[in-house]
Amino acid sequence: IAKEVAKLLEMKAQLGGDEGKHKFVLKTPKGTRDYSPKQMAIRERVFNAIITCFKRHGAEVIDTPVFELKETLTGKYGEDSKLIYDLKDQGGELLSLRYDLTVPFARYLAMNKITNIKRYHIAKVYRRDNPAMTRGRYREFYQCDFDIAGQFDPMIPDAECLKIVHEILSDLQLGDFLIKVNDRRILDGVFAVCGVPDSKFRTICSSVDKLDKMPWEEVRSEMVGEKGLSPEAADRIGEYVQLHGGLELIEQLLQDPKLSQNKLAKEGLGDMKLLFEYLTLFGITGKVSFDLSLARGLDYYTGVIFEAVLLQQEKDHVEESVSVGSVAGGGRYDGLVGMFDPKGRKVPCVGVSIGIERIFSILEQRVEASEEKIRTTETQVLVASAQKKLLEERLKLIAELWDAGIKAEVLYKKNPKLLNQLQYCEETGIPLVAIVGEQELKDGVVKLRDVATREEVSVRRESLVEEIRMRTSR
Amino acid sequence: IAKEVAKLLEMKAQLGGDEGKHKFVLKTPKGTRDYSPKQMAIRERVFNAIITCFKRHGAEVIDTPVFELKETLTGKYGEDSKLIYDLKDQGGELLSLRYDLTVPFARYLAMNKITNIKRYHIAKVYRRDNPAMTRGRYREFYQCDFDIAGQFDPMIPDAECLKIVHEILSDLQLGDFLIKVNDRRILDGVFAVCGVPDSKFRTICSSVDKLDKMPWEEVRSEMVGEKGLSPEAADRIGEYVQLHGGLELIEQLLQDPKLSQNKLAKEGLGDMKLLFEYLTLFGITGKVSFDLSLARGLDYYTGVIFEAVLLQQEKDHVEESVSVGSVAGGGRYDGLVGMFDPKGRKVPCVGVSIGIERIFSILEQRVEASEEKIRTTETQVLVASAQKKLLEERLKLIAELWDAGIKAEVLYKKNPKLLNQLQYCEETGIPLVAIVGEQELKDGVVKLRDVATREEVSVRRESLVEEIRMRTSR
Repeated sequence: IAKEVAKLLEMKAQLGGDEGKHKFVLKTPKGTRDYSPKQMAIRERVFNAIITCFKRHGAEVIDTPVFELKETLTGKYGEDSKLIYDLKDQGGELLSLRYDLTVPFARYLAMNKITNIKRYHIAKVYRRDNPAMTRGRYREFYQCDFDIAGQFDPMIPDAECLKIVHEILSDLQLGDFLIKVNDRRILDGVFAVCGVPDSKFRTICSSVDKLDKMPWEEVRSEMVGEKGLSPEAADRIGEYVQLHGGLELIEQLLQDPKLSQNKLAKEGLGDMKLLFEYLTLFGITGKVSFDLSLARGLDYYTGVIFEAVLLQQEKDHVEESVSVGSVAGGGRYDGLVGMFDPKGRKVPCVGVSIGIERIFSILEQRVEASEEKIRTTETQVLVASAQKKLLEERLKLIAELWDAGIKAEVLYKKNPKLLNQLQYCEETGIPLVAIVGEQELKDGVVKLRDVATREEVSVRRESLVEEIRMRTSR
Repeated sequence: IAKEVAKLLEMKAQLGGDEGKHKFVLKTPKGTRDYSPKQMAIRERVFNAIITCFKRHGAEVIDTPVFELKETLTGKYGEDSKLIYDLKDQGGELLSLRYDLTVPFARYLAMNKITNIKRYHIAKVYRRDNPAMTRGRYREFYQCDFDIAGQFDPMIPDAECLKIVHEILSDLQLGDFLIKVNDRRILDGVFAVCGVPDSKFRTICSSVDKLDKMPWEEVRSEMVGEKGLSPEAADRIGEYVQLHGGLELIEQLLQDPKLSQNKLAKEGLGDMKLLFEYLTLFGITGKVSFDLSLARGLDYYTGVIFEAVLLQQEKDHVEESVSVGSVAGGGRYDGLVGMFDPKGRKVPCVGVSIGIERIFSILEQRVEASEEKIRTTETQVLVASAQKKLLEERLKLIAELWDAGIKAEVLYKKNPKLLNQLQYCEETGIPLVAIVGEQELKDGVVKLRDVATREEVSVRRESLVEEIRMRTSR
């Protein structure tokens, strides 16, 4: 229904407003949006927290094109491939917009024969999904990725990825959160010992992936009804995938008579134990849960997988309308780079992707609710005049300030009223006004006014830069 | 020929390497590239200089989607429209990748009914042009745009745009440069008084635009031969478009018996005079030239136009292989927002676009030549151990450092050799090593080593963070 309504609204929009002259629709494409200066200020805060964390962990940064050869993306995303944006064939190569930053990263490593790197990449990705913009789901959205590629001792880079998620979500003060962890090898082991035929591993995995949105009963009936799994096998899976806990659950499963006989599951559980030991050293196990229902959609994961969710805050009614959900996810993908290498050489990788759109929605709503005033410029001083015919003097002064590195503005009017100039400062949060007048020019001074206190002092022109710097450095 | 060679190379590339197994080509799309960490470090420097300048002038920042409705871009770029990338019709809206940031900006203003803003926008734009990547010409490239929209007294914002170009090019120390300035109204006036029929204004303007790449004789023969202009008219144009100078040229043309009779030209010349007066106050006329051959390609300009070029440095042989050319351009476009407004309400705009790809090429070559070592991470300290079996202690210590905001790394090995750990620091430029060993753990200290001087001191564990901060704050 939502889809149909959206279609109708779109058709209505395309019919245009009441003006017949301009028939085109004045909008951004479906599922996309502009960022206003105020939204950009909030976005910059989020990016800042994330980049600071990535740099704290010694990451380099790379960038890749917004589109890739179509074949680069082919066969990497399973069922989700239908959501890829293709470019029109205008002669030349067939191109698609990137769907995530992981596949371009793997292509980059293979192309440049890099076997060892820790890098971050922050860029927009594109998915022709059904958008739900109020809940922070867009067709064009940012991903902030941190990945570690290379042959290392087990679980050390994996643990660092979880530490990074923990640091960023703590830093951003988004309220309580939980990082769910699982391992594709454990899931595959569970499927094997429950009697799922090999050919159905992937599709049953997709069903399990829905457990965060559907109750077990529904997932079970999908497995049995749509996917033709035996009811007994489904029930056995049900017993496993509803388990979650910490080290004690790992120990328990390592003793499980069936699971402990499965090679993949045993490997996965052994690594999970090691991971939890490292997470204990990092002091973050309190917010990490080993959760057998976590499956993750993408095809390319081969080991540890994880996902961070924000927990609903019952008390905080302000945020009620923002649906909480997954804000970060990732895992190990040891086979992806090999898919690009002509000789199939593997480069083990593990990484995390922070999705900022939901985080941004929450922070934006919080700012709206708090009525916090966000400055959208950094201007330190407005160069103003009290009398007419002083435009030339204002321009001379502001050039001096710019050349000294002071952030300064001037109204683009020949003879602006002083009141209008002061008002502009109040509206935009400019803290100081440098006022030139006939008398000041004669005396070689500038009147410096503090917008908040309305105090005015005369400052010698040659000391003005220093005085502005001093007053705005606090 | 270059086109054909490129085509053949592409076909050859598509035939693949010698491995038959993986048939796809491992490359980025034609005309695009990845940025390595080292290239990103240089790119960040350039962005930093540009953003600092934009903020110094009190600009807000916005962002828009990478694609627009196809019809949003239609009819804005004249002959260049054929270079627009379209998306494939996969059902839903018809979309195109943005061709510049100016049209999306105008769409943003009209859509949000904004009549007054000073904003910058730094983002990638897309043109299906013939790439010349060694000369910094790409199909995906960054534009750094600063625009002032609003009804203001004449030429004050226009002068500020030129001041910004001057500040940025000076800051980046790219060598000598020249900012050419003209006005579309003056050009149109010239065409009128030279006897060009109205219907040929635009196409003759395109011919004039080629004067920076072709001698006048060739341009003249294009006008007469291809475009059917009378030889007399062409010769009359030739006399004007070869003029360039400063205030004195403006005064001379204001006295020109024919041109001074043309309303448009007179307006343009009057404004040009005012512009030069403001540029004199800004102290930048030394690098600005009123140049009647400057035409600019885009359709939407209505008044002042300008373009900054780097001047060849004869002495500096290092940069010989980098072709110099236009690195910034812009102008006034008072009609563009009105094209999007249902009621055709105009919002006068003037703006400048800095093209960083050429600048980046020059700086990259300069770095290569100087063998300057560029750090690609900001890591302050490597947490290391001198003996085996200390992974847990290293992880505990590094978590303490991360939580205190220290940028720290650890090798992802259980038992790395101390030599390897020190070598890693030398290679990546990490200045400090915090070494834990059995004895240090007993004594409650950490050995802090300065990588450059090889000096080692014992620091009490509780003072370690402070000590690292102090040593890396210089």
